Amino acid sequence: MATPIPSHQRIVPGSVNLPPYPWPATAKDTSVDPVSIAESVTSKLNGSLSSGDFASISELFIDNGFWRDHLALSWTPRTIKTSAAIADYLSSSPTKLSSVQVDLTSEFRKPQIASFAPGGSPDVKGIAFYIKWGTSLGTGRGVARLVQEDGEWKIWTMFTCLVELKGWEEKVGARRELGVEHGKQEGRKNWRERREEEQEKGEGEVLVIGAGQSGLTIAARLKMLGVKTVVIDTNEKVGDNWRKRYHQLVLHDPVWYDHMPYLPFPEHWPVFTPKDKLAEWFEFYAKALELNIWTSTSLTSSKWNEGTKTWEVKVNKGGREERVLRPKHIVLCTGHSGKKFMPDIKGLSEGVFKGLAVHSADFAGAKQHQEGTERKRKAVVVGACNSAHDICQDYYEKGYDVTMVQRSSTCVVSNKAALKVLLAVLYEEGGPPVEDSDIWLHGWPSEVMKSIQIDLARIQREMDKDLLEGLEKAGFRTDKGVDEGGLFMKYLQRGGGYYIDVGMSQLIIDRKVKVKQGEEIEELVENGLRFKDGEVLEADEIVFATGFMNMRTQARHILGDEVADRVDDVWGWDEEGEMRGIWKGSGHPGFWFHGGNLALTRYFSRVAALQIKARLEGLGA
Amino acid sequence: MATPIPSHQRIVPGSVNLPPYPWPATAKDTSVDPVSIAESVTSKLNGSLSSGDFASISELFIDNGFWRDHLALSWTPRTIKTSAAIADYLSSSPTKLSSVQVDLTSEFRKPQIASFAPGGSPDVKGIAFYIKWGTSLGTGRGVARLVQEDGEWKIWTMFTCLVELKGWEEKVGARRELGVEHGKQEGRKNWRERREEEQEKGEGEVLVIGAGQSGLTIAARLKMLGVKTVVIDTNEKVGDNWRKRYHQLVLHDPVWYDHMPYLPFPEHWPVFTPKDKLAEWFEFYAKALELNIWTSTSLTSSKWNEGTKTWEVKVNKGGREERVLRPKHIVLCTGHSGKKFMPDIKGLSEGVFKGLAVHSADFAGAKQHQEGTERKRKAVVVGACNSAHDICQDYYEKGYDVTMVQRSSTCVVSNKAALKVLLAVLYEEGGPPVEDSDIWLHGWPSEVMKSIQIDLARIQREMDKDLLEGLEKAGFRTDKGVDEGGLFMKYLQRGGGYYIDVGMSQLIIDRKVKVKQGEEIEELVENGLRFKDGEVLEADEIVFATGFMNMRTQARHILGDEVADRVDDVWGWDEEGEMRGIWKGSGHPGFWFHGGNLALTRYFSRVAALQIKARLEGLGA
Repeated sequence: MATPIPSHQRIVPGSVNLPPYPWPATAKDTSVDPVSIAESVTSKLNGSLSSGDFASISELFIDNGFWRDHLALSWTPRTIKTSAAIADYLSSSPTKLSSVQVDLTSEFRKPQIASFAPGGSPDVKGIAFYIKWGTSLGTGRGVARLVQEDGEWKIWTMFTCLVELKGWEEKVGARRELGVEHGKQEGRKNWRERREEEQEKGEGEVLVIGAGQSGLTIAARLKMLGVKTVVIDTNEKVGDNWRKRYHQLVLHDPVWYDHMPYLPFPEHWPVFTPKDKLAEWFEFYAKALELNIWTSTSLTSSKWNEGTKTWEVKVNKGGREERVLRPKHIVLCTGHSGKKFMPDIKGLSEGVFKGLAVHSADFAGAKQHQEGTERKRKAVVVGACNSAHDICQDYYEKGYDVTMVQRSSTCVVSNKAALKVLLAVLYEEGGPPVEDSDIWLHGWPSEVMKSIQIDLARIQREMDKDLLEGLEKAGFRTDKGVDEGGLFMKYLQRGGGYYIDVGMSQLIIDRKVKVKQGEEIEELVENGLRFKDGEVLEADEIVFATGFMNMRTQARHILGDEVADRVDDVWGWDEEGEMRGIWKGSGHPGFWFHGGNLALTRYFSRVAALQIKARLEGLGA
Repeated sequence: MATPIPSHQRIVPGSVNLPPYPWPATAKDTSVDPVSIAESVTSKLNGSLSSGDFASISELFIDNGFWRDHLALSWTPRTIKTSAAIADYLSSSPTKLSSVQVDLTSEFRKPQIASFAPGGSPDVKGIAFYIKWGTSLGTGRGVARLVQEDGEWKIWTMFTCLVELKGWEEKVGARRELGVEHGKQEGRKNWRERREEEQEKGEGEVLVIGAGQSGLTIAARLKMLGVKTVVIDTNEKVGDNWRKRYHQLVLHDPVWYDHMPYLPFPEHWPVFTPKDKLAEWFEFYAKALELNIWTSTSLTSSKWNEGTKTWEVKVNKGGREERVLRPKHIVLCTGHSGKKFMPDIKGLSEGVFKGLAVHSADFAGAKQHQEGTERKRKAVVVGACNSAHDICQDYYEKGYDVTMVQRSSTCVVSNKAALKVLLAVLYEEGGPPVEDSDIWLHGWPSEVMKSIQIDLARIQREMDKDLLEGLEKAGFRTDKGVDEGGLFMKYLQRGGGYYIDVGMSQLIIDRKVKVKQGEEIEELVENGLRFKDGEVLEADEIVFATGFMNMRTQARHILGDEVADRVDDVWGWDEEGEMRGIWKGSGHPGFWFHGGNLALTRYFSRVAALQIKARLEGLGA
């Protein structure tokens, strides 16, 4: 029998577990002028690019250097490793990259001496700077990190991401719309009439399924690119995907990390957004960006026509009428919270259990215990990540006797450490513009990102020492994440398995909430659950905080086997460290996945929208 | 018989028509270091303030210098003129102004050589810089302008405005709310439940009447100061005050000038906001700022208790229930567009006219003329300012035969000149932060503001030369505004009388829309209007774009004679050039007026809210 993979090492099946990148040596000489070094490297790069001397480009990189590219050099996100492969890649690039410029427009962007390893041991000093660049097709930004090798400054990592397409520049700032056509226009309609018409008509080159953060962000990006888009959602109102979740839900990520494109949260916005407040923001976001969203609308059938490269999609609009849409592209945005995942437990579907048994998605909230008037109710929550913890806390605060069922282990990070260690510098009060932070973050190749996260997770565990020890003593099993990369690696490589503590851990440490650890559930019985070890846990209410189906399974549910059989698996890394199946061609023409937390959808909505636009316009994609 | 006041010189009755300020001499020597001069003047000012040597302060000013003060030195907005009066004013100030600092935090704020007279003839060079200051009660900002007199740099105008009160600092940025209380809380309610409770309860130290830009901005400012506030509005939905206005309404002011406090318009927002889009923004603004607004709610009675200094207000909430509120303060925010002003024309109330006769506030929009199927309908619009023009344009575009009735004269400014001349530099794409622009603008004493506006209006008229000549030729009478101060002076001193051209002027010039000029209406007849000159103008539809009642009249309508008899007249200047009756004590304790366009309500909502807070907290106000 093969040794089972330990829980903390579990990643999305089929994805590649890239190792951490060994830190390069620190620069010997840091009393240099970073601007002139950056200018010199950039100028050599430009020279080689313009002469087509790709061999000389490889000499600008260290042997094991990277070029991560989000659409500057090809129409799919790529991470190219080794200087030789980079030269090859550039030589075969269909777009002519040129005029790479050092970005001197702010202190944060300017070339500077940086310490790349956050743990400081080893200390890895080098030079980091933002860049701007252009091709015949568009303009973009990026970030370069240099290290010193044998006295020479070489590129360790280069990152280029496309921001705007020529001819389809976003209508913001000086290019914003006028809002009115001055001068006379016969039979003019007013803005509301035009909006209502457009919304009702639903003419779309792209159909987006789901109006959560994924659907809204991709629709907003497409709108800015001038792509006609219709979003459908089965919910009655935009925002219901959050509104209908469990009663006490408040985002575990802070406001600085959560901004949506084009409409940043204002400066009075709370650090952590309650679900209903986020739902209101979503509703307004759709209006402010003038997105065309059909609510209470479900897809009834879909068919891909290989000849015309067009979908024929039938939807039930508003529960009232059938409408046929013929988009060129479908983007599935039903997210991690689209379809519930319920474990297949004996007795569950048969209704053996006499109490309330629901998935966390259907959990309305705990009822307040009335002291003295009734016996204490018993709640069991199956699962040990964010939702499970929040629901246990809700039960506890309302006077229940609560047990959490933790089957494997959980990566726990205190709220404080999440803010001060994992997100600090990039996403904090007074931090850099969020677009700069995103470029910094996504500008790391995944292998290096893992090394960084291992450092950060070590600092975080030190900060959370008492918390983690207390949890272990109380019988709750914590883990360090994939390759000890902590929360962030768990999110990217596994899509879950963590808890950002907002108070529940102390309740476990104080034995106020009990933990049933390491046992699988055998079956539901009339008055509770029976575990494989024979123990019966009594319960009046059982909540399964067991997560949601993966996106490919959702595609199967919504679009059928014909589509799902052609698409790639979603989430986790491919061999380059790019995410699989999502924010790039899915394997099925005209079909895309988009999803993730608010921060990922903010950045990757643009990556995905630009690819779709490029295909619609025949830009060689 | 006294000579009648010409139309362009008409100002709000009882207000003071301050003359333009004669430009001071230009600085002889501008090759100086403005920062060190600013530092030197500021340091002398601080020295005198700390030693209480007020006589020496007067020497820092030119004789006819100004100190405009919005709540740094007293609890009412004031403009003090002459160095002697300034010394007196400072010596009797109840707050101890100290630590006036030159604001070096941005290029725009830093001391610099400035040309104060926009016309450039005379050229008036001096030094301008932003300041920060503190008292025992709060902190604020301001702007100082220096001129050179006999080789010495002296203060020409000083402006101080209170921004924050100590102990009640606004919860923005680093002081934003957490949004969640981490750790356990027995019986915790979620955000939505708490919001709904607060909203329903309606406990308010302040009652705001009207939920347009005035009501929303004052409620937002009060909220940031921790003052419990309830807003009532007779409309069904927030935003209806704009939504229900005429069909084609689009703001004539651009987005850069229109930002509301705390929630700036995003960078994709159109330059000119259509009314329904603004209405959506208002709805969301109320939600995002978590304002407590009761819609469909009207005031049924109100009584001021002089002993307890409290109102007893009865309202009909939602058309369903009577509720009694006991606020300490009422802020009337029903604005210029609160109650319609209909001229008292014979035949109007008797229904002699057989067609449609409505006020612009009730005008639903023109119907499209069906070519060939019906005779051309005739429309007459009474009035010659923004609304009248927009409504004429709507009628024309829908195929009507249209006549505008202009009884006096109108100050016309092309849209282009409004943007490029009147608002440029301060309110434009890529301009300074809007709070800086507001301080620059309101930092001018009104007399100097008039001199500036006279210069700008001259430039504007030059730019609009063809337009204005064309209009005059077509029989439309244009004017230059009060003392030739153009649009802005008309707005501040008269509260109307202008048109920002968005296309209608050309229709008049081309005789596509007719003008009936200079005649008063005698009566309505069955098929139209008869003028005093005997002419009968046939009409199927008549719209009275005759404006709205003044705020004091509205107070009478809503709160009765007892209140209205005690309040001051509203709008236009007092003898210092501060606006009368509004954004300061109204004359009736616990009663305030707030109103104006989006830009004025943005700035003055803070001025008013700080005064109310100071009174509630007994800070000597």
